[in-house]
Amino acid sequence: MYQFDRDSHVRRLDPGLYEGTASDLWSVGPVPNGGYVLSLVMAALRQELASPDPLSITAHYLRPAAPGPFAVAVELVKAGRNYTTATARLTQNDREILRVLATYGDLEKSTGPEHIAAKPPVPPRAELPPAAPVPGFAPAIAHRFDTVYEPDSRRRLLGELHDRAELAGWLRFVDGRPMDVHSLGLIADAVAPPVFAVTDRGWVPTLELTVHVRARPVSEWLAFVFRTRFLFGGLLEEDGEIWDESGRLVAQSRQLAGAPRRG
Amino acid sequence: MYQFDRDSHVRRLDPGLYEGTASDLWSVGPVPNGGYVLSLVMAALRQELASPDPLSITAHYLRPAAPGPFAVAVELVKAGRNYTTATARLTQNDREILRVLATYGDLEKSTGPEHIAAKPPVPPRAELPPAAPVPGFAPAIAHRFDTVYEPDSRRRLLGELHDRAELAGWLRFVDGRPMDVHSLGLIADAVAPPVFAVTDRGWVPTLELTVHVRARPVSEWLAFVFRTRFLFGGLLEEDGEIWDESGRLVAQSRQLAGAPRRG
Repeated sequence: MYQFDRDSHVRRLDPGLYEGTASDLWSVGPVPNGGYVLSLVMAALRQELASPDPLSITAHYLRPAAPGPFAVAVELVKAGRNYTTATARLTQNDREILRVLATYGDLEKSTGPEHIAAKPPVPPRAELPPAAPVPGFAPAIAHRFDTVYEPDSRRRLLGELHDRAELAGWLRFVDGRPMDVHSLGLIADAVAPPVFAVTDRGWVPTLELTVHVRARPVSEWLAFVFRTRFLFGGLLEEDGEIWDESGRLVAQSRQLAGAPRRG
Repeated sequence: MYQFDRDSHVRRLDPGLYEGTASDLWSVGPVPNGGYVLSLVMAALRQELASPDPLSITAHYLRPAAPGPFAVAVELVKAGRNYTTATARLTQNDREILRVLATYGDLEKSTGPEHIAAKPPVPPRAELPPAAPVPGFAPAIAHRFDTVYEPDSRRRLLGELHDRAELAGWLRFVDGRPMDVHSLGLIADAVAPPVFAVTDRGWVPTLELTVHVRARPVSEWLAFVFRTRFLFGGLLEEDGEIWDESGRLVAQSRQLAGAPRRG
């Protein structure tokens, strides 16, 4: 069993009610990463809902999670012919940590016209240096992935380049777990905040994260780009694109977060 | 009283419970526009919540709305020191039309570092032709705004240019209603789908719309750009930026919608 599956396992207690134990392997400092916490809810939704793919999933972060026991309660909003909409609450010690609203569907079922006005955000892996840790950036979650940053992104993470708040590269699970739609909530929040290229580092509290899953990934490695263009008024957005190695966009993400702060 | 305020008025029946009547003046064909329907929920949240500004609001569209009576039920998720999170359901004849999850806060309260890597998406209004209707595009909602498209966008709407799915311009309410944070849910969905530049026209059903309000608008006119870069698998995203005349980004939006289809 792969580490991510072990650490996002939920057990069904009753219809709509799940429990599990949050790991400390996916944390930044003492706090489980927001994408990892979202994955715990997605693990419950995956079991509860008839539709296989999370088309759109929004999480509002109410309190920091902690490693340890949690419960997820799922409430069905509408089960339609093409889409299933549900809401879910993740709690720890009866305190609500995360509220989620999601619509699931079947990505293999529908077709239509194509218009794609973008290219994968990074060169092929073969043209980049091999995966290597970035000195000075090593939260627990960083050890769960092999990550290859494109050269400018690596310089931004090292504090050598401050031109813009953008990080792009390739990543995969260190244990080679295949990517699937259920891991994309994690991936959408797994990389360092790109805003660190233009500000002091600090805690960047996610208020809200939305992930659109657009295709089922077919490769172990995923290409990513995350960027922040609007940091002001104590808030920032972080936009993400995630592509698989076949050259297809598999997810888009956007989060609203607080500006980096100490402590 | 301005038309938008008349048509988004809700009456409080009980704590958390509101009712109103959806107008037919903000429709596309027989169906009230998705941004307008979101505004009805925002009118209830505005009355119910202590925090003044909708920082992040996500709506999942379950069924088409219809002009006529509706109810909104608001449930508080968490009232914190800085943020208030709530969920809301809009129903008509006891059928749920819209499920909303939102976090409100106070945009005037927080500050921090600034990094803005974008410019307003269109030239100043004075450099563009005056507002004029676009022949062939005239749903009811289009008559509620004065709209000035920049020249390429106008040609895309007229079916003369198919280079990309992007529409940019300026708009204001025809009756001069000042823009505020409560009208930005409407504005985020008020323009024709930019995908029409690259596909046949048709019904573009919104599955999910998220709006981040980043500043309180200070002008009657707002600049906008909406674009679709990824149309495939029967789905598309539509990203929006809305700026005020002082040159400040006031909102970002993203929706996931179905590809245009007939009927």
